Amino acid sequence: MTLPISGDLIADHNDQHAAALDEDYAALGRQLERRGIDIDAIKHRVAGFSVAVPSWGAGRGGTRFAKFPIAGEPTNIHEKLEDCAVIQQLSRVTPRVSPHFPWDKVSDYRALREEADSLGLAFDAVNSNTFQDQPGQPQSYSTGSLSSTIEATRQQAIEHNIECIEIGQAIGSTDLTVWVGDGTNFPGQQDLGKQLDRYLEAASQVYAALPDDWRMLLEHKMFEPAFYSTVISDWGSSILAAQELGPKAKCLVDLGHHAPNVNIEQIVARLHRFGKLGGFHFNDSKYGDDDLDSGSINPHQLFLVFNELVEAELNPRDDFRPAYMIDQSHNVTDPIESMLSSAEAITSCYAKALLVDRDALHGAQEANDTMIAFQTLRRAYNVDVAPILAKARVEAGGAYDALVAYRYSQYSARKAQERAAVGLGAGIV
Amino acid sequence: MTLPISGDLIADHNDQHAAALDEDYAALGRQLERRGIDIDAIKHRVAGFSVAVPSWGAGRGGTRFAKFPIAGEPTNIHEKLEDCAVIQQLSRVTPRVSPHFPWDKVSDYRALREEADSLGLAFDAVNSNTFQDQPGQPQSYSTGSLSSTIEATRQQAIEHNIECIEIGQAIGSTDLTVWVGDGTNFPGQQDLGKQLDRYLEAASQVYAALPDDWRMLLEHKMFEPAFYSTVISDWGSSILAAQELGPKAKCLVDLGHHAPNVNIEQIVARLHRFGKLGGFHFNDSKYGDDDLDSGSINPHQLFLVFNELVEAELNPRDDFRPAYMIDQSHNVTDPIESMLSSAEAITSCYAKALLVDRDALHGAQEANDTMIAFQTLRRAYNVDVAPILAKARVEAGGAYDALVAYRYSQYSARKAQERAAVGLGAGIV
Amino acid sequence: MTLPISGDLIADHNDQHAAALDEDYAALGRQLERRGIDIDAIKHRVAGFSVAVPSWGAGRGGTRFAKFPIAGEPTNIHEKLEDCAVIQQLSRVTPRVSPHFPWDKVSDYRALREEADSLGLAFDAVNSNTFQDQPGQPQSYSTGSLSSTIEATRQQAIEHNIECIEIGQAIGSTDLTVWVGDGTNFPGQQDLGKQLDRYLEAASQVYAALPDDWRMLLEHKMFEPAFYSTVISDWGSSILAAQELGPKAKCLVDLGHHAPNVNIEQIVARLHRFGKLGGFHFNDSKYGDDDLDSGSINPHQLFLVFNELVEAELNPRDDFRPAYMIDQSHNVTDPIESMLSSAEAITSCYAKALLVDRDALHGAQEANDTMIAFQTLRRAYNVDVAPILAKARVEAGGAYDALVAYRYSQYSARKAQERAAVGLGAGIV
Amino acid sequence: MTLPISGDLIADHNDQHAAALDEDYAALGRQLERRGIDIDAIKHRVAGFSVAVPSWGAGRGGTRFAKFPIAGEPTNIHEKLEDCAVIQQLSRVTPRVSPHFPWDKVSDYRALREEADSLGLAFDAVNSNTFQDQPGQPQSYSTGSLSSTIEATRQQAIEHNIECIEIGQAIGSTDLTVWVGDGTNFPGQQDLGKQLDRYLEAASQVYAALPDDWRMLLEHKMFEPAFYSTVISDWGSSILAAQELGPKAKCLVDLGHHAPNVNIEQIVARLHRFGKLGGFHFNDSKYGDDDLDSGSINPHQLFLVFNELVEAELNPRDDFRPAYMIDQSHNVTDPIESMLSSAEAITSCYAKALLVDRDALHGAQEANDTMIAFQTLRRAYNVDVAPILAKARVEAGGAYDALVAYRYSQYSARKAQERAAVGLGAGIV
Repeated sequence: MTLPISGDLIADHNDQHAAALDEDYAALGRQLERRGIDIDAIKHRVAGFSVAVPSWGAGRGGTRFAKFPIAGEPTNIHEKLEDCAVIQQLSRVTPRVSPHFPWDKVSDYRALREEADSLGLAFDAVNSNTFQDQPGQPQSYSTGSLSSTIEATRQQAIEHNIECIEIGQAIGSTDLTVWVGDGTNFPGQQDLGKQLDRYLEAASQVYAALPDDWRMLLEHKMFEPAFYSTVISDWGSSILAAQELGPKAKCLVDLGHHAPNVNIEQIVARLHRFGKLGGFHFNDSKYGDDDLDSGSINPHQLFLVFNELVEAELNPRDDFRPAYMIDQSHNVTDPIESMLSSAEAITSCYAKALLVDRDALHGAQEANDTMIAFQTLRRAYNVDVAPILAKARVEAGGAYDALVAYRYSQYSARKAQERAAVGLGAGIV
Repeated sequence: MTLPISGDLIADHNDQHAAALDEDYAALGRQLERRGIDIDAIKHRVAGFSVAVPSWGAGRGGTRFAKFPIAGEPTNIHEKLEDCAVIQQLSRVTPRVSPHFPWDKVSDYRALREEADSLGLAFDAVNSNTFQDQPGQPQSYSTGSLSSTIEATRQQAIEHNIECIEIGQAIGSTDLTVWVGDGTNFPGQQDLGKQLDRYLEAASQVYAALPDDWRMLLEHKMFEPAFYSTVISDWGSSILAAQELGPKAKCLVDLGHHAPNVNIEQIVARLHRFGKLGGFHFNDSKYGDDDLDSGSINPHQLFLVFNELVEAELNPRDDFRPAYMIDQSHNVTDPIESMLSSAEAITSCYAKALLVDRDALHGAQEANDTMIAFQTLRRAYNVDVAPILAKARVEAGGAYDALVAYRYSQYSARKAQERAAVGLGAGIV
Repeated sequence: MTLPISGDLIADHNDQHAAALDEDYAALGRQLERRGIDIDAIKHRVAGFSVAVPSWGAGRGGTRFAKFPIAGEPTNIHEKLEDCAVIQQLSRVTPRVSPHFPWDKVSDYRALREEADSLGLAFDAVNSNTFQDQPGQPQSYSTGSLSSTIEATRQQAIEHNIECIEIGQAIGSTDLTVWVGDGTNFPGQQDLGKQLDRYLEAASQVYAALPDDWRMLLEHKMFEPAFYSTVISDWGSSILAAQELGPKAKCLVDLGHHAPNVNIEQIVARLHRFGKLGGFHFNDSKYGDDDLDSGSINPHQLFLVFNELVEAELNPRDDFRPAYMIDQSHNVTDPIESMLSSAEAITSCYAKALLVDRDALHGAQEANDTMIAFQTLRRAYNVDVAPILAKARVEAGGAYDALVAYRYSQYSARKAQERAAVGLGAGIV
Repeated sequence: MTLPISGDLIADHNDQHAAALDEDYAALGRQLERRGIDIDAIKHRVAGFSVAVPSWGAGRGGTRFAKFPIAGEPTNIHEKLEDCAVIQQLSRVTPRVSPHFPWDKVSDYRALREEADSLGLAFDAVNSNTFQDQPGQPQSYSTGSLSSTIEATRQQAIEHNIECIEIGQAIGSTDLTVWVGDGTNFPGQQDLGKQLDRYLEAASQVYAALPDDWRMLLEHKMFEPAFYSTVISDWGSSILAAQELGPKAKCLVDLGHHAPNVNIEQIVARLHRFGKLGGFHFNDSKYGDDDLDSGSINPHQLFLVFNELVEAELNPRDDFRPAYMIDQSHNVTDPIESMLSSAEAITSCYAKALLVDRDALHGAQEANDTMIAFQTLRRAYNVDVAPILAKARVEAGGAYDALVAYRYSQYSARKAQERAAVGLGAGIV
């Protein structure tokens, strides 16, 4: 393995902070011990946590209005993998990359898998793209994809998804994430019932192509790019579709794909209750699908989501092995920095959820002692878990402060010199 | 039958407007004929439409801050029935009353049914109340009802619902509407999964007590009175609960119980697609569960809902016989006037939905001719259907202009003299 | 003048429908007469109404995910003007075009003005663009524009706005519309107070360059492209900024730039009350700044906005001459068809607002007769004003049914043959 | 002074935790020292912080559906003061009580002030009530109050507010908080412009009665109890009204009175920028004006608000002395416990905002180093400040853990025995 950041640089950085980390970790350990919690046990579980990063997240994102490229952005899957390797090397919680096709198409997928492996990476869920037309593509997705009224268009979308499964098999994935932009912009544009029927019929053909150990993750979204209705608009539509498709179909929750004010942690609990919680796209938002950095806007909500996920781990009603992925649009930051920061925010919430005194919580719930139940959660949320995460990270070979180490490495400046510039333009790619 | 408003008064009123009505009806008829629509056929279907009114809607509503009573408000089920009879007599589209227990409790339900019958009324869905404590009641609903952690409380709620079914059988109902205020105000207050489990277990006992020809209508609501989570918060929770309970359980949609921006007409289409659309509570809202008069804020949304309902009538995938009810809080108007106005608004939307050229619509949808599909809906929406409704109403013995006839009757002033005053206070009863 | 659609074609189309129009107009006239309204007087005022179209609206719009171009889209200001001329020729309510710079840059603005004039068009408010980088531009707007911390960037934005004023003078405009994408994506990214200070300081330099008869229209927007905060996020920020700048600064309302549930018609009333209502960008939306066709989602809200505008006309507290413009993103329709449809929807709402019996309304308001006040509005809203609009349009040389005439003309097919194709890509241009 | 909780009990409690507190405080001190922060200086500023509690908050709250009273609830101002004294005694950050009239009316206000003083309390802003009718009151507020069309009603509301000022002078207040429930439930119900004119005219009469050192705090609210429009619906309406009234009029922000998704911390910055930030009503919410416990739903938002308040302290553009008050509806908890918990949550956010490295933040903002700016805020937010608050509290005579000490005192059980029971009913009082 040849990793992008010098191991010596990381070691030096860690050495500088070793004493401070030991002191903080010990002090927190004593405080937690008074509460009956073994800090090393928590650290051990944190060390076992991981979240995938999306290949496309390594590039600068944009809006429909504009995109402001930065020097050194990756422009192909090889450069993206290199950037993802930086994130994993420093954070030690992002060992997998989730690819998007056709954006990440290559001629040799076996070689791609080896390339990833040599960077300390593996592949996670494969994402299909039927919301965008590609040069030379016979059918346009302007009328939708899996739900289009045009049979040839649906067929093209089905085949693309099946191709994604085949690529996924070659690179070691076991999940196919299906998000479609299908919907309408006008009342009456489509029959809302028949549109879902067509989606279900087409999706069932994709489902039929799944290998035995694969899952199909359905991602719902309230709006954008369609602005009057979307075919899989909410978790209700998603779970009913997953029920119709079969046991390998699960629901994927993107934190930014819901109506205002909705209680997302309860949706997580509901999906788990009915055996259909398949995965997460982590990000944060204030208005719509803003795709901001995880935990940057509402870190408490992220904690409450992880509180449900830890409850689900403890109470795995069905097969519970959610696929976790970061899914953000880095419009104003260095994507590597944003993913380092987001991985830390996500892992922090997991750590805090582990700190919840579950017996006290359940006891207070049973006794309707609302204030104590709430305080039991809040007390865990308030803990500054940075020493636990840093300890786990350093022990795994990562950096005490991933952001500081990254800047110190001057990786970004190096890539700005090496890589071709990206042109102006709008949009997500 | 002794109806509350003089038949002569109605006839006089109608006579005054007969010529104008004939002229307008004829002119609209010619316009529709040019579009290939037979106005008499539409009128015939409009004449067959009806919507229930809630007994409690006859009284002035309030908020948590205040209630401003008006003279002549009904204070018992007998007075409420009388007011409902006025609404039906003038509008001819509200022949059924939906009672709420224990608010409408009486000692002799056979007599109550006869009383209603003598006023030209029948009873619709029975509503249970487990969101409010009653004097002398052994268990408090402060911890919830069907989902409470306290077994005795759940049992009390089950028994109350079963009692509602029994009363309903005595008065001729065949539906039980179950809305619970259960939920939480704090993160952690309850385990979100177990709370639903308890709800489902208790609801299944109510379900088991349903007679063969009865349905149990589950009403979801996003928030209020609980402000962090509610146990049946959205249509997704509602339909999954209904699936678990069995075929007699259906979902009831209240237009004000959704998250901001949600596409409610698509929810209607989804519930119908999966065979679980059971009924409606009509009202309107701008912010939350505002319980404003139907169609007063967003009449176009109401039309789009009826567009789905007419599609469902034409394409009845399962048993499709939705229970329609007005459910509003009349805080600043005479409740009778608001229900007359609302019944008109609702019926208008039904009439407009009937005017949609379904062949043109479906053809444009199939051809992805979005503008024509949209215009096909819009053209129907734009028609002023007042002459059709008035004609149907007058032919059925109702009033040309129900509001004008009602004011002319001075019913309100009469009741203000006859009835006892209502005290100050807040809240809904 | 050489207009794009054959006058004979329009005349033929109108002749086919002349009898129907006369019959419908006469019938509606008799109905309105019974209400004390002179239909010809309404028609006369409708004939005096107009709304500008945006040059960029003639092209297909897109989202950050994709854009689906259509054959025959205009790719320069000359082709856009030609398309706008079609809209005006058929609808007779869109005699002005609002240009956007640098998108519509040409070398000779005098010639451009003459070109527009020869197509029966004039120019409306000029729009500056400091939300997007242009090839070769020295400073990037990645840090914002008028509010950037970088002085050279602010200076570039100021100069661009001043250049827009100069161009506007050459083409006959008297308004500058300023919308900036400035804001933040992270808490802490900028000091929220200082950011506004910089905006105000820079905007005051633009203001200082306004000719005496010009106005500067400030357009607020809640979010997008910035997703945590925007510098002019709401009408409160907008009016305070306009107050600081001076009397020539006014506020422009875009219907899609508000928080969910907000009462936009009251914002209109507030801006008018404080003398700062400068103009409108008409469109519709369900979720965010969806830029859907005007009136397609919530036609009643559009009516209520026009109800305020008609009240303002009757009660012009200050200088009241709002600049009306359509501002939509036509992602799934032919932009010409959408603008024809939108112009009709907007004019309809104006006509309905004119039909409101203002004396009855004000009397009911004074008497707190809420139901009558509401019904007075509703009765006007319910009128199908199509015959009034059609009559006014036909009398002005436009088409009875603009959409039908447009399709019949085969203009779109002709342009698809003549014009160069647009490439794939995302975003708004 | 005879305080309600035994000082010995508090001392015993504190002794039990003294060693743990010292250890945690020292460890945090060392960590902060490494960041260049003196923990004692922060503690000193925290010790100087305070927030008022509302007299009505001491009673159980309710919704329009129901209220579930608890044993021992206070039913008059004397009992409420006693409960508030408990909160202040244990928390040491709530030395003032904000009264509401006529709810807290007594015959002798001098005696009331002495009673409060003997409990270690003073009075904060006086709240008027013109949203509710009182027995025997000549005019009803059913048509609104300060904005009613009925002159006698406006006059009654003006006089009530002036009476509140007079009472306030007797009890030592210097602020009048004015929140009105005025608004409409139907489009057209009132002329939106004239309604504001009437409000402003009436409010100016109240303003004229303010003593020189008094302020009038205007509280805006989006909806409830009015559900179509409210006369002071947002901060824009509030600040324009405050500008018209004069320099003693300021704006008060209630965190639950905004549209969904709105950036409240930016509103705080805007009000401060224009010299009109007068005060806060702290609470939390997920959906509407839920009046949940401060920081229980979105503690990060509360921190961001305090980040602006600390910036404002450092940069006091005008007279900056905001009135802070808790304003919650405690529907499911013991109100004393909720206010103890809320006072802690609020003070925590203040402490965290003090920990922000302002130089680093401003430097990163100037340099457009978005990630560092964000991380500078986030690093302060992540600190567990409990030891700082506990140290300040204990040093001021309060309890190490106020909630534990409160439960240990059995105050609640004692009052349940002593006080009269509260009846069933709905609503807020």
